Amino acid sequence: MPPAGSFQAASSVLPVGTPPGGPAPAGTVDRWSATVQQGWDIAGNANGGYLLAIAARAMGASLGRTDPITVTAHYLSPGKPGPVTVEVEVAKQGRMFGTATATLASAERPLLRVIGTFGTLGGTPTAELVDVEPAAMPPPDRCIPIEPTDTFPPPFMGRVELRLHPEDAAFSLGTPSGRPLMRGWFRLRHDEPVDTIALLCAADAFPPTVFNANLPVAWTPTVELTAHVRARPEPGWLRCRFATHFVTGGFLEEDGEIWDESGRLVAQSRQLALLPRT
Amino acid sequence: MPPAGSFQAASSVLPVGTPPGGPAPAGTVDRWSATVQQGWDIAGNANGGYLLAIAARAMGASLGRTDPITVTAHYLSPGKPGPVTVEVEVAKQGRMFGTATATLASAERPLLRVIGTFGTLGGTPTAELVDVEPAAMPPPDRCIPIEPTDTFPPPFMGRVELRLHPEDAAFSLGTPSGRPLMRGWFRLRHDEPVDTIALLCAADAFPPTVFNANLPVAWTPTVELTAHVRARPEPGWLRCRFATHFVTGGFLEEDGEIWDESGRLVAQSRQLALLPRT
Repeated sequence: MPPAGSFQAASSVLPVGTPPGGPAPAGTVDRWSATVQQGWDIAGNANGGYLLAIAARAMGASLGRTDPITVTAHYLSPGKPGPVTVEVEVAKQGRMFGTATATLASAERPLLRVIGTFGTLGGTPTAELVDVEPAAMPPPDRCIPIEPTDTFPPPFMGRVELRLHPEDAAFSLGTPSGRPLMRGWFRLRHDEPVDTIALLCAADAFPPTVFNANLPVAWTPTVELTAHVRARPEPGWLRCRFATHFVTGGFLEEDGEIWDESGRLVAQSRQLALLPRT
Repeated sequence: MPPAGSFQAASSVLPVGTPPGGPAPAGTVDRWSATVQQGWDIAGNANGGYLLAIAARAMGASLGRTDPITVTAHYLSPGKPGPVTVEVEVAKQGRMFGTATATLASAERPLLRVIGTFGTLGGTPTAELVDVEPAAMPPPDRCIPIEPTDTFPPPFMGRVELRLHPEDAAFSLGTPSGRPLMRGWFRLRHDEPVDTIALLCAADAFPPTVFNANLPVAWTPTVELTAHVRARPEPGWLRCRFATHFVTGGFLEEDGEIWDESGRLVAQSRQLALLPRT
């Protein structure tokens, strides 16, 4: 049993009915139960990356594969604490990858629809070519910790540990940097290791980039989030960078890059968010 | 009836059984038939963006919504010319958006699993902030046309019209630029207008970026492609830029930006491709 209060526990799933005896073949529909825990919310609504992690645990369990190679969630309704189910439909089991879709639903309504391809990261090295440096920022102890209070930041920040780049943190004092950019460090509380499922949570854990832009925007609901996981992270802090280049057509994208302490890119993410009409 | 040989005709879908009487409510499963046409292939396999467009036509028709706001395809098997079906399952019909998943399958096997949120682009302007210029390149008549021959380029290039940036075109002569970057112009043949479904084809129409990198890579199969459509394009050429920053962990991403002739960003795309082990 993962420790109570851990991310592992908060994102765990249990089979509904007879536990599957092994990886589910294509065409299988599996059902899993989970609980959206208290305290993983932003103003009452569960963090989107946390909900995606619950769905991904179920998908990985059905497929019998550990790592989410590429996962996309479409957000249908906000999630509140309480019981949820995840229905997983296996689309393909191949040699290297398994693909499935899933619906995470409360008793009242579907919250997320997800598609994902899972596999096993690591193995023999292949050609590499990286032309972007890990985001430059001061070490964690010289960045700005985000701790939950009664008001801002939200309760979710008590579950994960964020340290923002000083240049990107002053939006909370009413002085945004002017650039839609959010850089900082991420880890789970109590030295809990970040597995490749927890990376999905990291990909949606930071304040919206537009909080640092001079735009009349109070919130940007996520329509869709895609994360690519490239490697299992080394223990330690994750170095994260989220940036937006196109606020246009009533939408904006937020591109994330996540490196581990060894300087390796472990995940990329992109979300499409809605710019509410003012 | 769209003209024979047009993209519109090649990507059209017909209802299987009674035509739907209007937008399908959540929970509906609709079936559509289509034909993967001859000539839209790369070395015998249908272009992935073309297959995605067929699936998206069916999804938009089921949802009763015109524009794919965000669509993700996971590629399960290569597609050959011939009949296919698209089974669409509607996940939600909301005020602004409808969300569905779909499976595009041949008689033998599923080819694509897709998730998409559709809506109506346009409407009242909202806050805008764009900090990336449209890709700089010579006008189409000073770029390099890609025409199909018996060998390279593939037959698909006879269906769409590409003009590559001279700096990015010499890979076909054995002299890659050294940068995983591919810039050029796209349009459909015979002045066919590019609708928001055809943008999905444009997002996967260019030669792989790694053809311009000095890597021992002959082909990079697409695992997943996500496209965000921001606006309906003005008539004319589309200005396209595809770039890769991270070839690592056995995968690479390819990020696309597509602008119309008025200089407006009409779509962004990202695909995750597999770097075959050498």
